[in-house]
Amino acid sequence: MTTTAALAAPKAGAPLERTTIERRSLRPDDVLIDIAYAGICHSDLHQAAEEWGTAIFPMVPGHEIAGTVAAVGSEVTRYQVGDRVGVGCMVDSCGECGPCRAGTEQFCERGNVQTYNGVGFDGENTYGGYSKQVVVKDAFVCRIPDGIGLDVAAPLLCAGITTFSPLNQWHAGPGKKVAVVGLGGLGHMAVKIAVAMGAEVTVLSQSLKKQEDGLRLGATDYYATSDASTFDALKGRFDLIINTVSAQLPVDAYLGTLAAGGAMVNVGAPSEPLSYNAFSLIAGNKSLAGSMIGGIPETQRMLDFCAEHGIGAEVEVISASQVNEAYDRVRASDVRYRFVIDTATL
Amino acid sequence: MTTTAALAAPKAGAPLERTTIERRSLRPDDVLIDIAYAGICHSDLHQAAEEWGTAIFPMVPGHEIAGTVAAVGSEVTRYQVGDRVGVGCMVDSCGECGPCRAGTEQFCERGNVQTYNGVGFDGENTYGGYSKQVVVKDAFVCRIPDGIGLDVAAPLLCAGITTFSPLNQWHAGPGKKVAVVGLGGLGHMAVKIAVAMGAEVTVLSQSLKKQEDGLRLGATDYYATSDASTFDALKGRFDLIINTVSAQLPVDAYLGTLAAGGAMVNVGAPSEPLSYNAFSLIAGNKSLAGSMIGGIPETQRMLDFCAEHGIGAEVEVISASQVNEAYDRVRASDVRYRFVIDTATL
Repeated sequence: MTTTAALAAPKAGAPLERTTIERRSLRPDDVLIDIAYAGICHSDLHQAAEEWGTAIFPMVPGHEIAGTVAAVGSEVTRYQVGDRVGVGCMVDSCGECGPCRAGTEQFCERGNVQTYNGVGFDGENTYGGYSKQVVVKDAFVCRIPDGIGLDVAAPLLCAGITTFSPLNQWHAGPGKKVAVVGLGGLGHMAVKIAVAMGAEVTVLSQSLKKQEDGLRLGATDYYATSDASTFDALKGRFDLIINTVSAQLPVDAYLGTLAAGGAMVNVGAPSEPLSYNAFSLIAGNKSLAGSMIGGIPETQRMLDFCAEHGIGAEVEVISASQVNEAYDRVRASDVRYRFVIDTATL
Repeated sequence: MTTTAALAAPKAGAPLERTTIERRSLRPDDVLIDIAYAGICHSDLHQAAEEWGTAIFPMVPGHEIAGTVAAVGSEVTRYQVGDRVGVGCMVDSCGECGPCRAGTEQFCERGNVQTYNGVGFDGENTYGGYSKQVVVKDAFVCRIPDGIGLDVAAPLLCAGITTFSPLNQWHAGPGKKVAVVGLGGLGHMAVKIAVAMGAEVTVLSQSLKKQEDGLRLGATDYYATSDASTFDALKGRFDLIINTVSAQLPVDAYLGTLAAGGAMVNVGAPSEPLSYNAFSLIAGNKSLAGSMIGGIPETQRMLDFCAEHGIGAEVEVISASQVNEAYDRVRASDVRYRFVIDTATL
């Protein structure tokens, strides 16, 4: 067992506090990681506030982890001490079911083990990346290629793969018109990745407040969805819409901006049901889809892709003492575009 | 001009009556078809009753047309007198837009010309297949291969392509588990085609009333959706659901029967909006899609596929004098599975 410094929510909704936690002794297939940076994902706030069902406290959030290998178990061959690595939303899965064998461990039929607020197959609670060290099974560790800073790499492990996966699977690329709904932590990654894939990218945001950023990130167009004329102007325009917004949307209006054969993929989910007219899908063979993070092989491909294209997240690095203030600012959408905690300050 | 016998609704909701109509003189790219059989599609009833927006009367319904070529225009090379041919839901489109060039004329940006209750690019009203003859531009005529009777071929031109297209485009085939919702005119074709494609097919019907038919058509399983335990029993089962029902459905419950990566494709559309929870799509990377008939090249592929696999519709051939009685029976869902009018009785 190793004792390591961490930031934990002692109970639902309470401010995060400095504490220490135990990490397990290395098993043969384990990797001990010295965490350098941990991203703050909006879902961390939801879970620390116990807004997504019963949660486990104390909770150490964090599933956007970047660092270096400090030690490896006796059977680990793919990583060595000093390797730059990352960990995302999952730290284990059954490895045997159809989805696991297909490399989509996020859909493990036994249920994958979440990086924090989860219970491992050994019965132990999991603690996340707001911490100086973490022990993770090698199969759930990804390599961060040289050329991406660990600070800007950390958010790729959730925001990056969450947007890369649907862009990849729904064939964003040259000749394709992609709309990204919402320019936040997920949305800004979707823009960067879609642009790097060669697509023509439009941002659809509530207002034009972040227009300059959107264009700087590579979007060619930027529209305010609060302007009703936007939906008329964009009728039949897009091949693919990546919806990163967790809010009620006029689904039929968005489907109307798709060309025949187009798809709108949701990566953000409002808790209330959405409504659509079946004819909005039938007239144009359109799809309304969902996408949840990505499997480990695809996460590695995403990291390699981002390194090749010089892509990282736009981050604001904070010290451990700023985490509660950062949470307030995330709640107020006052971040461009991801906070990452410098764990050296823990 | 040619005068031909037809069945027409003189005004919205009125019984169909015998009449005569004029067919245009052959243009260089026209084909004159002696109609042998015309299927009665449920949409004929909606349109004759003016339930789908303003309609044109008198109306000669019918977009499931099978017959033989009686004459060809001076520039027609692909058809000769005596050829067995069919016509579906469209008789013209611009031929120049993206969708037309892609062979998806149903999404023509100028708007395709519907086989009946439409207005041609020449400004003339179109009249459908409940008639002894029809004149159609050669590009909208498909070949009916030998080996399918014209009576059982007629419904393929709408019910066949409407189900073949989503099965084809969403990759039904060996190793795939396909559910067909509803065993009516569309559903029974979906079962036959999916079975012929090599998929394992389950019928989901309100009751078990047609179970024997479903299994005879090749389905391996048959469940009643009125039984709440059905949705638990089928959790995560299907790769593809073809929903042929134009009624409000509990969308989330159906999405729950999809495996990760699965899709539910709607070919029937209720007029009221449907409701879904975005999480039903996200958890499992699922899709909710729509599909509208199919383009001309795909319609020809469907006919060739059906001939190769000995597939036709299950039909009840009626005489012209029985058409209003048949409409009543379609409204009462009392048909297994498609009425076709023998136009020799006109």
